[in-house]
Amino acid sequence: MRIFLPVLICMTLLAPGRADEGMWLLNAPPRERVKRDYGFELTDPWLQRVMRAAVRFNNGGSGAFVSSEGLVVTNHHIGADALQKLSTPERDLVQQGYLARTRAEEISCVDLELNVLLEIEDVTDRVEAAVKPGMPPEQAVTARSAAMSTLERESLDRTGLRSDIITLYQGGAYHLYRFKKYTDVRLVMAPEHDIAFFGGDAHNFEYPRYNLDVCFFRVYEDGKPAVTRDFLPWNGAGPQAGELVFVVGNPGRTNRLDTVERLEHLRDLTLPYRLSRVRHAEANLLQYAQLGPEQARQAQGEVYSVANARKAYAGQFQGLLNNNIMATKRAAQKSLEERFASRLPDAASAFQEIARSQKSLSAFEREYFLFEQAHAFDSELFTIARHLVRLAAERPLPSDRRLREYRDTALESLELTLFSPAPIEAELEKVRLADSLTFAAEVLGGEEPTLRQALGPLSPELRAAEVVAGTGLFEVAERKRLAGLDAASLSREKDAMIQLALAVEARSRSLRKRMESEVEEPERRAYALIARGMFALEGPTMAPDATFSLRLAYGRVGGYEVGGKQIPWFTTFGEAFELAAEHHNAAPFRLPRRWLDGKARLNLETPFDFVSTADTIGGNSGSPVINRSGELVGINFDRNRYGLVRNFVYTDHQARHIAVHSRAVLEALDKLYGANELLAELRR
Amino acid sequence: MRIFLPVLICMTLLAPGRADEGMWLLNAPPRERVKRDYGFELTDPWLQRVMRAAVRFNNGGSGAFVSSEGLVVTNHHIGADALQKLSTPERDLVQQGYLARTRAEEISCVDLELNVLLEIEDVTDRVEAAVKPGMPPEQAVTARSAAMSTLERESLDRTGLRSDIITLYQGGAYHLYRFKKYTDVRLVMAPEHDIAFFGGDAHNFEYPRYNLDVCFFRVYEDGKPAVTRDFLPWNGAGPQAGELVFVVGNPGRTNRLDTVERLEHLRDLTLPYRLSRVRHAEANLLQYAQLGPEQARQAQGEVYSVANARKAYAGQFQGLLNNNIMATKRAAQKSLEERFASRLPDAASAFQEIARSQKSLSAFEREYFLFEQAHAFDSELFTIARHLVRLAAERPLPSDRRLREYRDTALESLELTLFSPAPIEAELEKVRLADSLTFAAEVLGGEEPTLRQALGPLSPELRAAEVVAGTGLFEVAERKRLAGLDAASLSREKDAMIQLALAVEARSRSLRKRMESEVEEPERRAYALIARGMFALEGPTMAPDATFSLRLAYGRVGGYEVGGKQIPWFTTFGEAFELAAEHHNAAPFRLPRRWLDGKARLNLETPFDFVSTADTIGGNSGSPVINRSGELVGINFDRNRYGLVRNFVYTDHQARHIAVHSRAVLEALDKLYGANELLAELRR
Repeated sequence: MRIFLPVLICMTLLAPGRADEGMWLLNAPPRERVKRDYGFELTDPWLQRVMRAAVRFNNGGSGAFVSSEGLVVTNHHIGADALQKLSTPERDLVQQGYLARTRAEEISCVDLELNVLLEIEDVTDRVEAAVKPGMPPEQAVTARSAAMSTLERESLDRTGLRSDIITLYQGGAYHLYRFKKYTDVRLVMAPEHDIAFFGGDAHNFEYPRYNLDVCFFRVYEDGKPAVTRDFLPWNGAGPQAGELVFVVGNPGRTNRLDTVERLEHLRDLTLPYRLSRVRHAEANLLQYAQLGPEQARQAQGEVYSVANARKAYAGQFQGLLNNNIMATKRAAQKSLEERFASRLPDAASAFQEIARSQKSLSAFEREYFLFEQAHAFDSELFTIARHLVRLAAERPLPSDRRLREYRDTALESLELTLFSPAPIEAELEKVRLADSLTFAAEVLGGEEPTLRQALGPLSPELRAAEVVAGTGLFEVAERKRLAGLDAASLSREKDAMIQLALAVEARSRSLRKRMESEVEEPERRAYALIARGMFALEGPTMAPDATFSLRLAYGRVGGYEVGGKQIPWFTTFGEAFELAAEHHNAAPFRLPRRWLDGKARLNLETPFDFVSTADTIGGNSGSPVINRSGELVGINFDRNRYGLVRNFVYTDHQARHIAVHSRAVLEALDKLYGANELLAELRR
Repeated sequence: MRIFLPVLICMTLLAPGRADEGMWLLNAPPRERVKRDYGFELTDPWLQRVMRAAVRFNNGGSGAFVSSEGLVVTNHHIGADALQKLSTPERDLVQQGYLARTRAEEISCVDLELNVLLEIEDVTDRVEAAVKPGMPPEQAVTARSAAMSTLERESLDRTGLRSDIITLYQGGAYHLYRFKKYTDVRLVMAPEHDIAFFGGDAHNFEYPRYNLDVCFFRVYEDGKPAVTRDFLPWNGAGPQAGELVFVVGNPGRTNRLDTVERLEHLRDLTLPYRLSRVRHAEANLLQYAQLGPEQARQAQGEVYSVANARKAYAGQFQGLLNNNIMATKRAAQKSLEERFASRLPDAASAFQEIARSQKSLSAFEREYFLFEQAHAFDSELFTIARHLVRLAAERPLPSDRRLREYRDTALESLELTLFSPAPIEAELEKVRLADSLTFAAEVLGGEEPTLRQALGPLSPELRAAEVVAGTGLFEVAERKRLAGLDAASLSREKDAMIQLALAVEARSRSLRKRMESEVEEPERRAYALIARGMFALEGPTMAPDATFSLRLAYGRVGGYEVGGKQIPWFTTFGEAFELAAEHHNAAPFRLPRRWLDGKARLNLETPFDFVSTADTIGGNSGSPVINRSGELVGINFDRNRYGLVRNFVYTDHQARHIAVHSRAVLEALDKLYGANELLAELRR
């Protein structure tokens, strides 16, 4: 059956009005489509409350307030980074989980920042006004960046809120988002890794699933639980088959508006490079983890992260190699070009502009990733070293002339991570740096000048050992000392990691400049023309591509068919026990002791996970699934394999996102975890 | 300490007479060096007996006769392929091991062929005579290949022995090897995987080690154990510190005579490609193995094989990225070029010729690997399909005009594998083919014409599923039927795997032709000039590079120093128990139940594994380690991490091969396995 998927995708695309497609802006919601297809009215108060109940995890996920006292739910795999940073060789919170029975037992996270979106302002005209007609790309980049910094600074000064400008439609629009920022975040409850990630990598991006992929935090203000009036009441019954649900969160990145030439570039260059990189890192980390339980503990977060990326990229790659999908894209683009040709010749020529920028990009993309994106230096200490080097260089400049990540309004969040006391493991740093330097040599050859400058005469393994042994950046106090130095003084420091960062700085910056002026700026202009052309022809029928900013998706709860077999829309606790038994409770199909011992207390009919057609992607992890009444009925944590091509095309044929059922959480908290305080708060 | 290794390598290379370097030909043994350094006389009878006691495993390893009744010892990891083919979901011989208590319990292997070298004849002049001066490369290839086939055919007809011509010195010499061939091979004894591969991938290419990496087979003739007069008596005491030992086996491939430009090509193109390929396959196989114990069983052989290759390639790559090693190579080549320049201008210009052939190679090497070497089609069924397609095309030609692997003298061995009843797992075939097609797309892009011909409009995953579902090659009877068809009839068969092989056949053959005429033939001529030049200047002071043919290495038993710490030359049983306890007996540091239960019976002081300076490489796995008296004192199974650069440079500073101690085998067979018959035979 699977081999007929392409045909069905075509059919779906030919009837675009039917599908639940779109990751919609909260200030441009799909009112008419939802009304037409589901008879539900998206009102302003409903939208406003949902927007303010949604929480962005700055490490790449989503969540939501579920009480008026700052309680946040997200996924275990989104909370895992914070759990890891609180763990020690003796107490592994990622594996064992945690439960604070009282507020006093809630543990402060070391560097977690949560953001809540309060207001959106369209500033497209003011950003575009900074770029004068005929400006060469390099000047345009600077002018636009300065305008954005100024707008953000003004907003921060006026409102006191974190203010970030979000680029939409690949450059077609700019919106200023104002966030309330929480940095006192405390861990409330996490289940064991084995039940949060039951099935492991084998079941990642698959369905049916059996995961209690949830984690609870609480935000504090002035040492007290924050008052969060806008929250989602926990609906303990959960959704029904066919029910309309919404997913509100921060989808990371899609490419649905990308041109065919851009997709070909992704297929033939970017994705092969990325796949190769994550496979490299994964093999290295797995070998390190094999050395013993402590090494496995240190590496677990990275292992999950690269394995997840590998599966996601692999799915995208398969999609782009499917010529039926590409043919659909080609036909759509051709039709658009033809319609533009007569009425909007500028927009028609924009496609060629984007094709040209892909050609430019091909000449230096891998170098850009390796040096400027630091793929050659996969090391937390290198990240710190580079920030210190760049801070020293950028600080003397006026804020609106700096590299964007060092503008005044960004420094507070940067310092939270730069001076984080989170542990950094020397041996893991060494093998990661050695592996990434090796990867760079595989990509660029053994005599590439910048790489050779980084290596000296040594092999990557010997050089990585030398650099990690020769740096003092493990110590926060040392980082603070170095952060106080000016550029000249810093360059005289003997620290080996600082020297490594300095050695590759000139080349990295020049690659960034090239990327901005030869690729990003021409693309931004071209996509802006295309987006405006589409609006002119059709009105705002298409949501912008995902950009890790807040979006609203909607869909219908329901199963699907594979090879003539009906896949039910929900799984149960009982099925999880059956699967574990089939695998003799061996990893990754191992249930925690607590579950095995407590089985008799559980209602095995309890729905565990469920699926709906709502349009999600990575970054939506931890997003609340919400019913018409604005109550939480699930926590999104994944999508199935058919959803892996969602970066490029949406179909509701078999593609589904997967969520933990709200009732499963209550049942487990009650019968297995004895989390009475937490339960009471959720039921209040 | 490790970072000073390069300096020491330089020192070692500057005093070439000192080191125990060389994988020597049995017909050109290092008599003078061994006499000079160890005072030992390599006599003809000693050499002849050792040569005829050595056994080549055609799946890529070595072994030796250890009784007059056809008993062969090798490594568990060399026997594993045969063990896997005898296993079922219910009985996993790789994991559980096996012991035949009587001859009747010895199990026949399904397609294992063992070769014993009886005679060597130098046929360089007769091969070279076929190539006339001024012949264009393409003709030279054909002429040389025809001459070789004729010589082999004559030898087989005259002696009845398998006759293969081996190319030495990259084309500097041709020797005809005559083998006795055994195809009735039966399994006698294998220990459990957990003790054979204790420490797993983490300890592969590391030392200290604790592995009982042995496996016993017996060769039969006419249904009875073969009479093997030349065998190595088992010395139960084992070696002493400082003792001279020999390793006799079939080292697979070294590149010590390669020119600098060739090494740069390996560093910048071949090794990055190969690393990327094995990482790709490894990630895929590990994911498949995660699905459950049966999938893990099916994939285990391949998992070992790609993980082992990954570590070996990675070590070579680190070595070539070490500019200190490359500088030494450059200096040596420069000095040779200068000495040639005045006396042997032809030899001097040969270096340029090799540099040119690397340039040619760069243009199509990856396509050659992917299509002609079938890296894009990693499937046992594809291998069979290609053989069937080529057999049909080649059989009508005279034997000396065919592709070399289809000459008359090779057909019997080919059919052994082609019609092997060894199980082929459909799901594993599917994921391997999908993964390798995906890899090809990553390397070549999504629109490469031959690949697109292989894929049709589908993605690699969908296409692999289609092809594996549409082939009848799982059945030996079907293979035999297809092998009976002529080319025209075969091309009309609907079998999807045959059609896939046909679809890529023209391109694959043209890449092979290009490789032969643009690279191999010019290189063969150039290396022949260099080799003869070196002989003219210095005499035969250098052994030829390894070519998976029989070689003799020698060295001294002894430990080494790392970072000021002395690493002892042997490990003990007791240390293995300690290590397992530290790891809570968790994989890969898990001892078999039999070992845990039998610990009290064991002498824990028994030497387990040991190291010597003898010069080995992959393919030497299973090689006997022999003392002056021609007795077996160990079974080589690995080398340490410092030995990974041995492909390019030999040093005895820290590099060591690793062997199972002969006493460890007796102690385990006696106290743990109760293998009384086998013990009696070894002690006879």
